[in-house]
Amino acid sequence: MAQKGVLTVISGFSGAGKGTVVKRLLEKYDYGLSISATTRSPRAGEQDGREYFFKSTEEFEQMIKEHQLIEYAQYVGNYYGTPKEYVVQQLEQGKDVILEIEMQGALHVRDIIPEVNLIFLTPPTVEELENRLRSRGTETEEVIKERMDRAKEECRYMEQYDYIVVNDDLETCVQNVHELIQALHYKKEQQEGFIRKIVQEFEKR
Amino acid sequence: MAQKGVLTVISGFSGAGKGTVVKRLLEKYDYGLSISATTRSPRAGEQDGREYFFKSTEEFEQMIKEHQLIEYAQYVGNYYGTPKEYVVQQLEQGKDVILEIEMQGALHVRDIIPEVNLIFLTPPTVEELENRLRSRGTETEEVIKERMDRAKEECRYMEQYDYIVVNDDLETCVQNVHELIQALHYKKEQQEGFIRKIVQEFEKR
Repeated sequence: MAQKGVLTVISGFSGAGKGTVVKRLLEKYDYGLSISATTRSPRAGEQDGREYFFKSTEEFEQMIKEHQLIEYAQYVGNYYGTPKEYVVQQLEQGKDVILEIEMQGALHVRDIIPEVNLIFLTPPTVEELENRLRSRGTETEEVIKERMDRAKEECRYMEQYDYIVVNDDLETCVQNVHELIQALHYKKEQQEGFIRKIVQEFEKR
Repeated sequence: MAQKGVLTVISGFSGAGKGTVVKRLLEKYDYGLSISATTRSPRAGEQDGREYFFKSTEEFEQMIKEHQLIEYAQYVGNYYGTPKEYVVQQLEQGKDVILEIEMQGALHVRDIIPEVNLIFLTPPTVEELENRLRSRGTETEEVIKERMDRAKEECRYMEQYDYIVVNDDLETCVQNVHELIQALHYKKEQQEGFIRKIVQEFEKR
């Protein structure tokens, strides 16, 4: 009986480096993959169920209606989303799954999968957040101001997350998040199979 | 601003080895101490506030009435208990505190200190629990049966704990519990000081 995997959603301010942290976690450790669904057309070489689950707009909207998506968004006229079924399959096979989701979507995941763990990644200071946005060198002053204003709004939602991890040094942060996810296997909710087993062993005596 | 320490209560079946695990944790790592209060008389060389806080029966009963004790019990005509104030001081100084408490008391700690983390230690199987009780060589068959009957009762409360850690190999278990406690520092409830700091930094902009 494989222990169920841990589902983690990683979110945080734009500029907190969550994309890079998730990429490194998937490179370094054996996490289950999540495959997105989309209504955009497959490109040459892309396979259904490998790069994406390719859906028609009707199919995608049906999935939305039936709460089959953990989160979804529209981008340049196409839908993108995370199908619940595939993630649940991975968890049941004992794989830990990490999803990177924007703050607006992250807090709603709990409505779809109550046992999710919500991690909020943050730079150590607000000054550092601004420095990072600026040092990308690709953003105009206007975009930086917009991002900082949004972060100011978003920081009010930090308290709704389960865990707060500071991203100061990238590799340290990746290590810390990985160790946190490992520790979450001890949660009572993850150990329900083991508890049932012990109770049954006592009953058989 | 020191981060607040993590409070953990370790409990489990009699024979799960929780005493040994807690002893090794305190030997190997830098945890805050908890000093018990008692109504028994000081022995030669014992100092108030070092080995115990020595209290009169009236003082102790007053502490019970005022919910100043995290847990308490009576043993050979004397009271023994864990004063809340001293533990809270340690946590505020940033020290993690581990308390070993019997199952009957452990679940009540949440009423006194809501942010406590309850860890349940269990052998991997019921058979192994019985083997351990038997291998001590000090218990009569009757005592072993009594302990096993009590464990059968107690296993119904496992689900009320926050974390379940299997104690198979002692040193592995000590390591696992320590890593779990380290990860608990990322809990939102532990990061409230940091969240306030970030919110204030945004407000000052």
